[in-house]
Amino acid sequence: MINHQTLASLTGILGSRLVTSASDLALHGRSESHFPPMPPDAIAYVHSTQDVQDILCLCNQTKTPVIGWGTGTSLEGHTAAPQGGLCVDFSQMDQIITISPEDMLVTVQPGITREALNMALRDTGLFFPVDPGANASLGGMCATRASGTTAVRYGTMKDNVAALQVVLADGTIITTGSKAKKSSAGYDLTSLMIGSEGTLGLITELTLRLHPIPEATSAGIVAFDTLHQAVDAVTQTIQMALPMARLEFLDAASIAAFNAYAGTDMPVMPHLLFELHGSTQSVAEQAELFGDICAELNGHDFKWSSKTEERTALWTLRHNGYYAILASRNGARAIVTDICVPISKLAKAVDDTVKDIDASGITGPILGHVGDGNFHAILLIDDTNTQEMDLAQQLSDRMVQRALDLGGTCTGEHGIGLGKRKFMEREHGPAWDIMTTIKSALDPNNILNPGKVIK
Amino acid sequence: MINHQTLASLTGILGSRLVTSASDLALHGRSESHFPPMPPDAIAYVHSTQDVQDILCLCNQTKTPVIGWGTGTSLEGHTAAPQGGLCVDFSQMDQIITISPEDMLVTVQPGITREALNMALRDTGLFFPVDPGANASLGGMCATRASGTTAVRYGTMKDNVAALQVVLADGTIITTGSKAKKSSAGYDLTSLMIGSEGTLGLITELTLRLHPIPEATSAGIVAFDTLHQAVDAVTQTIQMALPMARLEFLDAASIAAFNAYAGTDMPVMPHLLFELHGSTQSVAEQAELFGDICAELNGHDFKWSSKTEERTALWTLRHNGYYAILASRNGARAIVTDICVPISKLAKAVDDTVKDIDASGITGPILGHVGDGNFHAILLIDDTNTQEMDLAQQLSDRMVQRALDLGGTCTGEHGIGLGKRKFMEREHGPAWDIMTTIKSALDPNNILNPGKVIK
Repeated sequence: MINHQTLASLTGILGSRLVTSASDLALHGRSESHFPPMPPDAIAYVHSTQDVQDILCLCNQTKTPVIGWGTGTSLEGHTAAPQGGLCVDFSQMDQIITISPEDMLVTVQPGITREALNMALRDTGLFFPVDPGANASLGGMCATRASGTTAVRYGTMKDNVAALQVVLADGTIITTGSKAKKSSAGYDLTSLMIGSEGTLGLITELTLRLHPIPEATSAGIVAFDTLHQAVDAVTQTIQMALPMARLEFLDAASIAAFNAYAGTDMPVMPHLLFELHGSTQSVAEQAELFGDICAELNGHDFKWSSKTEERTALWTLRHNGYYAILASRNGARAIVTDICVPISKLAKAVDDTVKDIDASGITGPILGHVGDGNFHAILLIDDTNTQEMDLAQQLSDRMVQRALDLGGTCTGEHGIGLGKRKFMEREHGPAWDIMTTIKSALDPNNILNPGKVIK
Repeated sequence: MINHQTLASLTGILGSRLVTSASDLALHGRSESHFPPMPPDAIAYVHSTQDVQDILCLCNQTKTPVIGWGTGTSLEGHTAAPQGGLCVDFSQMDQIITISPEDMLVTVQPGITREALNMALRDTGLFFPVDPGANASLGGMCATRASGTTAVRYGTMKDNVAALQVVLADGTIITTGSKAKKSSAGYDLTSLMIGSEGTLGLITELTLRLHPIPEATSAGIVAFDTLHQAVDAVTQTIQMALPMARLEFLDAASIAAFNAYAGTDMPVMPHLLFELHGSTQSVAEQAELFGDICAELNGHDFKWSSKTEERTALWTLRHNGYYAILASRNGARAIVTDICVPISKLAKAVDDTVKDIDASGITGPILGHVGDGNFHAILLIDDTNTQEMDLAQQLSDRMVQRALDLGGTCTGEHGIGLGKRKFMEREHGPAWDIMTTIKSALDPNNILNPGKVIK
């Protein structure tokens, strides 16, 4: 809760940019996933680092919870306000500060979305590669250590943030990292902030690594008789170090949903979608090599193309995957699971998950970034049916247990938020206590996104 | 200092592996660089995580300083014991625990050296790429966030450590990371430990990322009339995203030293050395592309080869660079400087440094990993001549100031230790306080490598 005096002081700082209208609170309390609404008490539409500093100084004194907000596309209840408090909405702090093409870096405010960023970069010959699917804000992507389809080639947010400006709980402004490509100068606070989900500080500026737009891009698709063959193709490809730019798995149920959604007639069996970036010659060479790997595993209907329209059609399919699957059951909501396992355990993890879902009676197509060992089941539920909700939650929990048993992690890219906190002890053991120790040292009043990530 | 009772308890834990002989203490108190000897009071030759835990529990109770030791090749006084205490020598904890070729990972004890590791991996078709020059231990390389010649392609230790086992100051054993390729599960403690120079914990196990040994390797050399042309060639190459596996700069003075040391007759002018990894076709293609870039900048004497002997000869030259330069002045010692700047500032940084060194009267050839914007001057000094020592130290300090003025860092790869601590405030501002806050939270008695890195 925010008391009246704090609210008055916040209005003093922000004027009409401090909002408490019921509709706006409701909007900032809901989630794209299955969590019940948990609205904040007020929303601050910040315009500057100074705004954020002023807010945090005040909220730290008054022990008011502060929750960062980008575009609200996170999936584990990261932006929920279970204790109320102030939502700091960065959507109006969305400017590009500097583009440094020579250093292949760009410095941005946290509210810019990845599509807006890449649009602004289009004349530089450079792009920012991390693509979690949703048109998320860069601040949010950094806070959750997002990744997505291109991580297999370009890495995750962890690999693509050079420097940060962060406002800490007490209003201290720090900068971490630099524009130098590497450094051994002390603790890596940049990496500590990436993935801390707004519990250690609020990101007010990001310097991001850019990559040259490839001379050529080829994309393709291939079908397999069995899930095992598809996964084996992935494993072999990764082990040969073929530089796939994207490598996505879609199970037969996902393909059926696509066919129904988009009127396509792909064979209803497991597929791999892929993309390659490089010179005209190298993408052709690599597509052929990948084709050879697939052929050895009875892959069929192998198609690839370097033509923009054909590539776009293919990836539109993938990007609409979530909606196609959602549409396959009228009025359904989805629990989107997210695990990541060592690549050697991928076949077993997918296999056991499919069997478990099949036995449960829940519909749950599987797709994912298998080049990284990361995949999702999209569990379709009627969220008014508690039995179904429970069944789906149990399925999701068993997926995590399976991932941990196989040496993997409870979340490859969605983060902890509220939803995965129950697995932190099991995954990290005493290292979770250390996270809590760090949190307490940096935010002794526990005002930053309380109830998330740590104990 | 270690008191008698603590010494007796340590002997109880370690038996004859607790050593206090004068010669061994002297050996562990000296440094490869210019720091005066600062020996510990005793050395513990540990054999297991349990040993390390027992030692830390005891030393934390008795507030005894504890300093980790790998091979003693660090350059900024990291292993010095200015307050005495216990040196924990990991050289006998040098086993490979598991090789997981399917996941391209290896789990090792911290005392194994990178050459021993790569020797053990040679039948797997995989290798560990980080190469700081010295045959350092992997634990030490991780503790200093080492990099070296191959970082331009494969990244630094930051990019090549998947998981760690670490014993904290109070004896708590934690594991960070996992064998999954990525994770969004909480704070990135792995990255926090990498580069913390033994001030947050002692690393007892590392899981490292391996890479396929390339099908083909080509290496070459090219001379330039001016330093600017050489550096421009580097900048253009990086901006074209040519995947150089190594890209090293050597100034005319370095070449002169090589000629004298190895009896070669290379033209005494700035050179670039490079290496490419890939398919037979791609390394040839890329060598040609790189040749074209160099030719545009009047590069001459361009030579490249895929033959093992010719490549080895070329890189032996580079690896002996330090010794060749050291040998160019009889009885000299060296201050090895280390800065890293944004690639767009590289030409200015090198240029200004050369001018500064020339004006000082000190001999100081320049070489470095310019593909990353990182370079070193090897300042030759007579360490009994205080005036020379001072001059060289001032040169080194001005290099750092220059790097910081240009948006770079005071150390690209050597770390902070004792030598660079004075620049931490300037480089990090209030973020240095935050490092200190984290240190105090994790090591409240300040027993782990006291006097290094933090305030």
